[in-house]
Amino acid sequence: MTNDAAHNMSELAVELLQRLQRVLGSGRRPVPLHEPCFRGNEWVYVKECIDTAWVSSVGKFVDRFEQELAGFAGVRRAVATVNGTAALHICLKLAGVEPNDEVIIPALTFVATANAVCYCGAMPHFADSEEVTLGLDPAKLDQWLAKSARLQEGVCVNQQTGRRISALVPIHTFGHPSRLEALADVARKHQLALVEDAAESLGSYYQGRHVGHWGKVSALSFNGNKTITTGGGGAILTNDPNLADMAKHLTTTAKIPHRWKYEHDQVGYNYRLPNLNAALGCAQMEQLPAFLDSKRRLATKYREALEGLDGARFVQEPPDCVSNYWLCTLLLQPGREQELDQILEATNAAGIMTRPVWALLSSLPMYRDCPRMNLECAASLERRLINVPSSPALCL
Amino acid sequence: MTNDAAHNMSELAVELLQRLQRVLGSGRRPVPLHEPCFRGNEWVYVKECIDTAWVSSVGKFVDRFEQELAGFAGVRRAVATVNGTAALHICLKLAGVEPNDEVIIPALTFVATANAVCYCGAMPHFADSEEVTLGLDPAKLDQWLAKSARLQEGVCVNQQTGRRISALVPIHTFGHPSRLEALADVARKHQLALVEDAAESLGSYYQGRHVGHWGKVSALSFNGNKTITTGGGGAILTNDPNLADMAKHLTTTAKIPHRWKYEHDQVGYNYRLPNLNAALGCAQMEQLPAFLDSKRRLATKYREALEGLDGARFVQEPPDCVSNYWLCTLLLQPGREQELDQILEATNAAGIMTRPVWALLSSLPMYRDCPRMNLECAASLERRLINVPSSPALCL
Repeated sequence: MTNDAAHNMSELAVELLQRLQRVLGSGRRPVPLHEPCFRGNEWVYVKECIDTAWVSSVGKFVDRFEQELAGFAGVRRAVATVNGTAALHICLKLAGVEPNDEVIIPALTFVATANAVCYCGAMPHFADSEEVTLGLDPAKLDQWLAKSARLQEGVCVNQQTGRRISALVPIHTFGHPSRLEALADVARKHQLALVEDAAESLGSYYQGRHVGHWGKVSALSFNGNKTITTGGGGAILTNDPNLADMAKHLTTTAKIPHRWKYEHDQVGYNYRLPNLNAALGCAQMEQLPAFLDSKRRLATKYREALEGLDGARFVQEPPDCVSNYWLCTLLLQPGREQELDQILEATNAAGIMTRPVWALLSSLPMYRDCPRMNLECAASLERRLINVPSSPALCL
Repeated sequence: MTNDAAHNMSELAVELLQRLQRVLGSGRRPVPLHEPCFRGNEWVYVKECIDTAWVSSVGKFVDRFEQELAGFAGVRRAVATVNGTAALHICLKLAGVEPNDEVIIPALTFVATANAVCYCGAMPHFADSEEVTLGLDPAKLDQWLAKSARLQEGVCVNQQTGRRISALVPIHTFGHPSRLEALADVARKHQLALVEDAAESLGSYYQGRHVGHWGKVSALSFNGNKTITTGGGGAILTNDPNLADMAKHLTTTAKIPHRWKYEHDQVGYNYRLPNLNAALGCAQMEQLPAFLDSKRRLATKYREALEGLDGARFVQEPPDCVSNYWLCTLLLQPGREQELDQILEATNAAGIMTRPVWALLSSLPMYRDCPRMNLECAASLERRLINVPSSPALCL
């Protein structure tokens, strides 16, 4: 960076950059935001797929990956899918979301959460977040529903739109669990199906239990930027064997099992995870505990490095939670929003990849007219959150 | 097989089994219907993905696979997708299919053709097939439309349902090209967008040109059972660079390009092909000419072995076409339908995997109430077609 550029930078940007550089050392640049780490049996398992020609729909790695996921998360069943979006789409269908329903999701989430709602023919209804968890604010949501919705023959109806509100979808932002117990209470009270979008939170625990247990079904993602990756991939978690069987059925074109006949009993999806990708997943699962340890060490380093900094703090896991620290995150103090762009410019220019959080979905053209509550906190977080490099290999 | 079982078999089943065994030799049993063949650079390319950690969204193999597909098919652009169903879904959107439209598809196709229509919120309208190509019968379709549809301000409207008919989707059954020229005429005359479901027909040519050129956009599949495979995968082919750009945009969550901002301008899809799978595809493309030669040799062997057989014949490529012979196929003579099950039982029991064609989609519970024309020929073909082992390695 030239002296001129440095001169124009805010004090906070300069100081933050120095502290991040201290954490990340003087290794190669740029430091990616999150890159996968393949130091285990990836090649062995993938080669086995190729050698045996079992790369596609069926194969032992799909079954094994599903069993290992279920075992790790402590749920009865996991169904592997082609990606996290597909997993969430099927979760919503299994939860009973129908065309023309509304589904409550945070405004502050990745766009896939809202898209999956649309794939069901339903409409997202945006709710506000809170600063501690970065997830849905259960108290505010409960107040909003008490005022704006009514129960009508056991169905929650939005009084303004007249549409059924059928489900509530919390996410665990950057791996930090939302207040699941309170959200489950809200869901019960207002007759909403609870579906966890756990795309970012494999390895995150709420009150000692892995996330993904509080609703009927929940969705994981193994995209290339996630804690473990299968190239592209996802999974549906559930404790209900019937829902798991239906998830498998729906994700494999709803074909009726037969030795040779091709008959299908409903509109299904080609959402299965190929065996080739599951093989990668099996190797990654073996390294997951080490990745989680590494990410926790990295989080500690960031937290320590940012202590006493005026203007921003490191976002720690919420009380009573263990976060996987998927993406380590800084939060600017209120009033420092105008420094966000400078910080992003300075850090990226110095080869330290950082990024802001997603634009509020309620501001995107296709979701601008969707129902919403007051989104004050989400709007503030949107202008104050910064993700910093978080690859599992950084502290291995 | 016991003597008793053989005793109960029809003469045709016995004779057919013997002739198939002659073609397939005395190698390992069972002989799969279609298994992939990995004898090229699969390991090398896939290992490169793992070694460089480029397994996911972006990576050189995705670009290369797309370029090689476009080059092979002689189209300007190819956009790789996570599977063929996803490719067809996006093709239909690009062709302008809207919710509540009807889309004409053959009743005799894999269920994904109809499902993709449903994903658009539209409804399949089932049309009949013909015996020569196994694909849509253009003359019969034209008559049906002349009688049942009317043009209303340039829009084709089904007079019975009042819905717009927006697109016509031929498939190239088992690799045999449909009558594309006549179908394109029908589409023009009735103002329908032509979209080729070319899932089964990479390497098939109609009037000297690769299939996938006759409509605005067309869809390929690289599922595990296809001529080449990426585990799971597909592609959109088009000569229109704007449609190709839009296909890429829609298949990658409709994100607006930016160094770090996450903004999206419409409801998009997570339909990209991971680089890991594209690596497999690049290695497979190098072997595609050899696979096509092998399949053609196998088809010749089947044809010769079945010559003079009373009761069934080998299905040859239609006039003026080169078929990839994706799945080699026998057709029972009319009147021999009741022997279909015996033949399937006898061949599968002997370790030669065979299967009937798909159940007519118009008979499946979720499509039973969809509009349709008379499906006499498709219904007859359904009870007379038998696929026989067709793996590319059988004659390599």
